[in-house]
Amino acid sequence: MSLVVVGTVAFDAIETPFGKTDKIVGGAATYAGISASFFTDKVKIVSVVGDDFPQAKIDYFHSRNIDTAGLQIKQGEKSFFWSGKYHMDMNTRDTLDTQLNVLADFDPVLPDSYQDCEFLLLGNLTPMVQQQVMNRLHNRPKLVVMDTMNFWMSVAMDDLKETIKRVDVLTINDEEARMLSNEYSLVKAAKKILAMGPKVLVIKKGEHGALLFNEHEVFYAPALPLEDVFDPTGAGDTFAGGFIGYLARTRDISFSNMKRALIYGSAMASFCVEKFGSERLESLTHEELENRIQLFVDLVQFDITLD
Amino acid sequence: MSLVVVGTVAFDAIETPFGKTDKIVGGAATYAGISASFFTDKVKIVSVVGDDFPQAKIDYFHSRNIDTAGLQIKQGEKSFFWSGKYHMDMNTRDTLDTQLNVLADFDPVLPDSYQDCEFLLLGNLTPMVQQQVMNRLHNRPKLVVMDTMNFWMSVAMDDLKETIKRVDVLTINDEEARMLSNEYSLVKAAKKILAMGPKVLVIKKGEHGALLFNEHEVFYAPALPLEDVFDPTGAGDTFAGGFIGYLARTRDISFSNMKRALIYGSAMASFCVEKFGSERLESLTHEELENRIQLFVDLVQFDITLD
Repeated sequence: MSLVVVGTVAFDAIETPFGKTDKIVGGAATYAGISASFFTDKVKIVSVVGDDFPQAKIDYFHSRNIDTAGLQIKQGEKSFFWSGKYHMDMNTRDTLDTQLNVLADFDPVLPDSYQDCEFLLLGNLTPMVQQQVMNRLHNRPKLVVMDTMNFWMSVAMDDLKETIKRVDVLTINDEEARMLSNEYSLVKAAKKILAMGPKVLVIKKGEHGALLFNEHEVFYAPALPLEDVFDPTGAGDTFAGGFIGYLARTRDISFSNMKRALIYGSAMASFCVEKFGSERLESLTHEELENRIQLFVDLVQFDITLD
Repeated sequence: MSLVVVGTVAFDAIETPFGKTDKIVGGAATYAGISASFFTDKVKIVSVVGDDFPQAKIDYFHSRNIDTAGLQIKQGEKSFFWSGKYHMDMNTRDTLDTQLNVLADFDPVLPDSYQDCEFLLLGNLTPMVQQQVMNRLHNRPKLVVMDTMNFWMSVAMDDLKETIKRVDVLTINDEEARMLSNEYSLVKAAKKILAMGPKVLVIKKGEHGALLFNEHEVFYAPALPLEDVFDPTGAGDTFAGGFIGYLARTRDISFSNMKRALIYGSAMASFCVEKFGSERLESLTHEELENRIQLFVDLVQFDITLD
């Protein structure tokens, strides 16, 4: 079995109230792949970069047993580049620059060695590319998790809905859930979105945690209150990678195991935001992760005996 | 022992995206008093109204064993009136009208029968009035909980800080915590505010739940995701009343019992918002409350075994 992660591998330049970076490596598949690799050594990436992409980063992926056979390197072309600036609340940001480059005509390649995919993460990307990846897998994975963003709701809503119809779990933020459903109440939004196809919906609320819905149940994973949120870039991708990574490791896609996966995803995201880019994830140890999981357990633990 | 609740008893006219009311009875002490009365029959109100205040509401207080000996009725004067309009997100509102009336020169009276006060809730009110109530109690209560709002931070910050210094628990919302501390991070804000005097800080985050901090610990109480939030007026007061009511009933002011109190307060608030004014609280049964507490338990329950 393997866990295939589709998404951008790219350059970001980030400005937050606490500092700014030059071009650093980012992208949905970078964050999600690294995050998932904490849980399983069967992570395989599907993406595309230009010949400006640093070999050192590819070596780093390999050092974490991340398979890059599906990472195309386009000679003479440049990697996707995004530049953004976060506001004080860290929940809103302005895009300063977007250069699609290799992403403009990205045609995902799935090596034969990827056909053992049982867990598929469709990271944030053009919905049609997310669909192509599903089409090119000979067997339907055991679990397909899809992440997306408001941008695709503005420019490709029909494609997006077609893609959503085919996945098991959709992860979006609260604003996107409202936009997709035209409902303000998240409970009503969840009902409408689950009627669009997915069996499970994750609504990410940033510093306010995340909600997990299926048709009959709801679960609330808190976010850990942090002293400093340094850079939120990649937090959602890191969350999704941790979520599906935990499910792939445990091979259990029940709702109760998804609750645990949500906590692990939230814990991974809580590390991601502590430094710029993927720096904190790259220094993270399993012991630090387990200690943080304990903080999440303590954070919500109370003991009420009802009559 | 008794639980004394200080705050406004007043008229509100409310407009939300879902409807509007004429003048209905509201006010911090109304919501907090009714909420607390679900937990103990020793609730005593300190407030002031005009002769326009309906006797039926005072009778209703009595029917819930709420003592109104400290509720002054000023002949020839009018009750405090507030009118406001909520925006779609229900987290922001515009004040349309404020008529102080009897509140302009409110001099709180504490009947002798109130001197058995062990639990004191200083509901949202002029900080100097909150202090006067403390001054007029012969014995320092076992626990003083204070609620306040951003308005007092703008017009009476020095008085407010003097009052905060003397209380055990402060309850404010996230925006107010940031305003009071000049810190964006709620963890940093909590540290600064706890250094101002209170031993415990509750940060209310509306639909995102509430945080409980002491010097060394933090607890996250979720909010129940609701299909409809009809009218948020009084939710914070209802929360505070449920919180201190539970503590008064159990007579246990440990941090672990405050966690339970936070869940009970959140559950009470979740009912408050379901209808206009205090209507839903007035029809609430203990069985409904216990069922809702079970929903809160289920909402955050997960089971992770760490290595």
